[in-house]
Amino acid sequence: MRLVIAGTMALDTVETPFGKAERIVGGAATYIALAASFYTKGIGIVSIVGNDFPASMLADLEQRGIDLTGVVRHLSRPSFFWAGRYHADMQGRDTLETQLNVLLEFPDALPPAYRQAEMLLLGNLDPELQMRIYQQINPRPRFVAMDTMNFWITGKREALERMIAQVDMLSINDEEARQLAGDYSLRRCARAILGMGPRYLLIKKGENGALLFLKNGEIFFFPAYPLEDVFDPTGAGDTFAGAIMGYLSLQEEITLEALQEAIIQGTILASFCVEQFGVQALLTLSEKEVEARKEQLLRMSHFIRLPARA
Amino acid sequence: MRLVIAGTMALDTVETPFGKAERIVGGAATYIALAASFYTKGIGIVSIVGNDFPASMLADLEQRGIDLTGVVRHLSRPSFFWAGRYHADMQGRDTLETQLNVLLEFPDALPPAYRQAEMLLLGNLDPELQMRIYQQINPRPRFVAMDTMNFWITGKREALERMIAQVDMLSINDEEARQLAGDYSLRRCARAILGMGPRYLLIKKGENGALLFLKNGEIFFFPAYPLEDVFDPTGAGDTFAGAIMGYLSLQEEITLEALQEAIIQGTILASFCVEQFGVQALLTLSEKEVEARKEQLLRMSHFIRLPARA
Repeated sequence: MRLVIAGTMALDTVETPFGKAERIVGGAATYIALAASFYTKGIGIVSIVGNDFPASMLADLEQRGIDLTGVVRHLSRPSFFWAGRYHADMQGRDTLETQLNVLLEFPDALPPAYRQAEMLLLGNLDPELQMRIYQQINPRPRFVAMDTMNFWITGKREALERMIAQVDMLSINDEEARQLAGDYSLRRCARAILGMGPRYLLIKKGENGALLFLKNGEIFFFPAYPLEDVFDPTGAGDTFAGAIMGYLSLQEEITLEALQEAIIQGTILASFCVEQFGVQALLTLSEKEVEARKEQLLRMSHFIRLPARA
Repeated sequence: MRLVIAGTMALDTVETPFGKAERIVGGAATYIALAASFYTKGIGIVSIVGNDFPASMLADLEQRGIDLTGVVRHLSRPSFFWAGRYHADMQGRDTLETQLNVLLEFPDALPPAYRQAEMLLLGNLDPELQMRIYQQINPRPRFVAMDTMNFWITGKREALERMIAQVDMLSINDEEARQLAGDYSLRRCARAILGMGPRYLLIKKGENGALLFLKNGEIFFFPAYPLEDVFDPTGAGDTFAGAIMGYLSLQEEITLEALQEAIIQGTILASFCVEQFGVQALLTLSEKEVEARKEQLLRMSHFIRLPARA
């Protein structure tokens, strides 16, 4: 298996200033896998769905070469459900409802084919569960990335730090970084978090782009693609991470340069993701669209290409 | 005169999480002129100071080749005074006190030497006053930029739009752009604002950088330099604008490329400005420091230099 993804698969009800979509397919693993499948085959998901999860979406995923043998299908309970409402600025959001449902029975035993995964992406889950999944892959994957959230930062701090110590890259948003490090300055936060173990810290700032921090103090900046309208921000961060891991899984060596290109790819896929409700955009995206938008993004930072001044 | 700057000169009391500085020199024109003087001579200020404005600062400005014949020195009233407190995140701030004092007698007659200015920067002032200053320069300066704020957007909308119609570049922050255009999407805001007349719209986003919008729909993105600590954000936007105009005033032709380089220069000078209270950093900054930080900033966006992929 080239890339194993552990994360939620869910049904979401999303309200935005543009409208409301009820019980659409969501969940971190769904977004991650769809984004990664844009680049590579050999993806396997570890997750659980309930009896209300659309069979057509499972078929769509399989059709894209995504292995679902690690996805438990619960026959008598509904899927993990989240309902949220985005504020007018499309930045903040309120959670209206969370029903864990099948999530409480998330599998922690990997199918045999997953146990030699080359790459592992641990979506936002209980860090103890993330650790159990991580430890089943032997030899250790050549690149492990993880996400987390405030709930685990405050609620399972020690287990979370143990997990962070094992990964190559932690990908979180600016608020989470500040909470995790207990500081406001992102530069100082980065130093503290990289001190916990990871080689790379990727801090997501939504429409304000992303920052990649290295242990040697270097920082790289990635602008977001400025959209006319953000239609539904749900899943942007997972799409970003999925594209990064999908792109990286094709690289012989995971160099800094490869990671930079992967982050640009993630930026582009996330920008398409938020232009439609749910995973819709990821199902229809073409290479041509991605390439055209990438060219535009590079052009927007074109100043860097100016001839060097003496 | 190469560059005429109209704007406030003030005394500020600034509280930040790092401490408090009382009655230090501030005001848009002060920051703008100091930043511009880093690049060029032949700068003239139009402003007014009270009897409490430090003579030593006026001497410092003149020593940098800044002409103060356009600065009225009021003998019996105090200077414009602003007191504010920054929030812990150094983004938001509360105005604690504003004393207009001499600001009510801001001069609107330019000294003769200012009336053939090559470039004009209209700092945040009553748009009717900005217009009276603008109209006295003949022939029209080859580049005119302006700033404004929410107070004029809501209070003097028509006069403001008349003024915006005359300038080459409007430089405002993201909140002001949204208020001016009545929309949330910055891309749509930009279209609306550029429709009012200017060739360029520069939207400042603080620690999240700046966006330059062109009439043809092109957008250019400029990251901010990520600082360990922001000590006092006061004057960052004025320093940014001052550096841009100072740098541009030396260019034979004001091309898009020159403007892009100018914005990078503005980014760097603003990053130094906020590392100390008030104008302190601008008084001691060296070319070597600016050059070194610019190299770092370019390296941080280094991904753009990767060999193009086929």
